[in-house]
Formats: sequence, C-alpha cells, structure tokens
Amino acid sequence: MTAEPRRSVEDAPASDPMTEVNRAKELQRRDRADLHAVLDAALIAHVGFIRDGFPIVIPMAYYRDGDTLLLHGSTGAGFSRAARAGVPMSATVTVLDGLVYERSLFDSTVNYRSAMVFGTAIPVPDEEREQALRRISERLMPGRWAEVPVPTRKELAATYVLRLPLDRASVKIRSGGPSEDPSPGLWTGHVPIYYAVGEPVTQEGVDAPVSASVPAALATFAQQFGRLPD
Amino acid sequence: MTAEPRRSVEDAPASDPMTEVNRAKELQRRDRADLHAVLDAALIAHVGFIRDGFPIVIPMAYYRDGDTLLLHGSTGAGFSRAARAGVPMSATVTVLDGLVYERSLFDSTVNYRSAMVFGTAIPVPDEEREQALRRISERLMPGRWAEVPVPTRKELAATYVLRLPLDRASVKIRSGGPSEDPSPGLWTGHVPIYYAVGEPVTQEGVDAPVSASVPAALATFAQQFGRLPD
Repeated sequence: MTAEPRRSVEDAPASDPMTEVNRAKELQRRDRADLHAVLDAALIAHVGFIRDGFPIVIPMAYYRDGDTLLLHGSTGAGFSRAARAGVPMSATVTVLDGLVYERSLFDSTVNYRSAMVFGTAIPVPDEEREQALRRISERLMPGRWAEVPVPTRKELAATYVLRLPLDRASVKIRSGGPSEDPSPGLWTGHVPIYYAVGEPVTQEGVDAPVSASVPAALATFAQQFGRLPD
Repeated sequence: MTAEPRRSVEDAPASDPMTEVNRAKELQRRDRADLHAVLDAALIAHVGFIRDGFPIVIPMAYYRDGDTLLLHGSTGAGFSRAARAGVPMSATVTVLDGLVYERSLFDSTVNYRSAMVFGTAIPVPDEEREQALRRISERLMPGRWAEVPVPTRKELAATYVLRLPLDRASVKIRSGGPSEDPSPGLWTGHVPIYYAVGEPVTQEGVDAPVSASVPAALATFAQQFGRLPD
C-alpha cells in the first residue's frame, strides 16, 4: 500500500455543500472511478435515516449497479415502512486499511477508504425486484444463484430492495505511511489491516461436495479484500 | 466459529421501542456483556446525526469507556459545530464475520456482530479531554502514548471528544452455520471472514527500530480480530 497520486477531477461526482469535505480536505477524491472502487470494495453499508426525528444507522447488504446502489437488508427499525414513500438517507461505506504511527498522536491516523452517498432511495418496482435481488446475491455469493431454486413468489413478496442514486457522493481515501517527517530516535510507519476469507465449513448432514460457486466466491473476495499478510 | 447458546437476559440493557429489534428478533441479545464485547471488537463506529434535516453517517474512532462510548473522529460534515450543544445520534458498530450459504437465497445471510447505541452525545469537558484522548489512543495504538511527546495545549484545543452513554442500545449477533436443514444434493455451510494485521512498514528515513508498542498492538489486534485462517 503506497500513497497514491491525486487523480484527475474529470468525470467528478457533482460537488455541493453536502458533499464537500470539511476536514482533511486533501484526502477528498473527486473521480467517479474512486467512488465506484470504494463501493465495490466492501459488502456492508451503514445506512442512516430519520425515524421519529431521531437518526438511525443500520447495516445493509448492497450492490453498486452502475451509478446507483441497490440496498437490501434488515427491515428493522421501521425502515421498510418509511421506504415506501422514498427515504432521504445516507449510505456510508468504510474500509479500514491500517494504522498510521506518526511522530505525534495528534497527527497519527488510520488508513481508510470511505464513501458517503446522500439522496432519496426509492423501492425497486415489483417487476424488477427479482433481477435486483439477483445482482445483490451475485455480489455477496457469486455463482450461488444458479445453484439453488429460484426465489418463490412468496419470498419475493416478503423482500424489498431500495435504489439510491450516486448523484451526490463524497469520497475520502488515506493510504500509505506517515505524512510528517520522521523524528530522531522514534519509530514511525504504518501497520496494514487485511480482510481474508477462510475455508468453507460444511453444514452437518450435507451429502454434496462444496459447490462450484464457493471457491469462485473465495477467489473473488481474496482479490477484492487484498492480499493476505505473507 | 460455532452457534453460541442464547445467554441470560440478566443485566440487560434497558429495552424500549427504540432498541427493540423488528426483524430477525431471535438474533437480539440483551446481555450487557454482549454489548460490550461487540463494541470492543471493532475500531470504527458509523455515527449518524441530523444536519439541516438530513441524516448523515460518518466513520469515527471510538473507545468503550465503561458504560459510555468516547468518540473522536472527523469533524467533517458540520459535526463539531452541532456537537457543542449535545448531539442526538446513533453509533453503530458492525463486524462482518462470514457468509452463510443456506439451501435458498431467501434464507441465506451473513454472520455478523452489530451494536447500535442511541442517545445524545455531549462534549468531554476541557479538563478531561487529555485523559479521554489517551484512552482512545490506547485502544487504536496500545502503548504508543508513552513513546511520543504528550499532546501540546494547542493540539488539545484543536481536538474534541464526545461521550455517548450506553443506556439505550441494541445488539444483534448471528454466528455459525445454516439454520435450515440441508437439502439433498446441495452444499450448504458457511465461509468465515477474518481480519488480520500485517507486518509494520517502516517510514523511509527512520533511524530507530520498531517501537515496543507496535508488536504489542499487533498481538492485541490479532486476539481481538480472531485467528487467521490456517
């Protein structure tokens, strides 16, 4: 992991007071490719919405579908009721990549990739729901859709998916080592944090070998989550 | 990772409509020890608050200090301004532990530990700020505080820390393999996801060996994040 050069601002997400970073502005990215890359690097978004005047934050599975997010998750916290009318929300995705030991604690920080998307999510229409669920499923468990029975009408009816446009978004990325100069006699540097998938654990009583989709998923995630420590 | 027995509800966090789980109720935990364990298992919380009527979610570093959270992070998104008067907020911590391949996609899910804390955060008073920062620092970079110069008055003045009580909180944990029975001829099971720390990367020009705090931090995190895949 090394400090990356600032990229071009061409093809930037629309910028407005909502999406302008107020702190550590030098970490803000305006390239849409960076937004896509951060959203594609995680599996769970933290979605904020207002219920009874109070801000609620829930984790949701998602899939980036072009320039929108498809969100699917717990209908807890009254979210599904609010969702019918369109939900003003933020969806924030953060990947923690490491710890940065600077010469002072004030300057010490973490390496991370974070994207915040702001907007109003609307429910995916009934006739598009199966396709939307398939895309989210293929993100979480690539290849599995083809191995199991298609969802029943009843299952589809009990499910909802929201679509949130990526028009208003803010991206911050910090990577690499310390920004301050070294201080004599003091170690400074950074410590990477990795994500890794383990070996599949077969359910008791299963009479079939590991499905073809599982190693494929592991390979996909290993690539997305980055290499394991040597 | 195995399915854990449901624990006792003694010493439960206060329960109210805000903290009652609406979906997958069987995953809700009411033991304060579970709340503490989830909060102690991650380094970043997703904090939701309302700005100009809109829900905002930002990642913040935190430390669980007894039955409160100390929060410290980006002052972006107008958060520090709002914080002076006390901020109604949610702080949600989620650790993704794996993917669960059930016999249908409708039942397939993820393993996770998630805690949501709801309340009003108040700024830590000036005279307690250094101690609060020290605690957060010791969480992120155990042992580092003793190795670097103490924060200057100017650095302390440029920093703020919020304290959020854990009075109202909701915990959900899903672990282990599939809940549904196996289906003939189909593999079902689960795939663990791990977090791991890598080798420290020394900044160019540093004239000192890796500080004693770093291996100590790595050992702490290795324990907290769980074992690496074999």
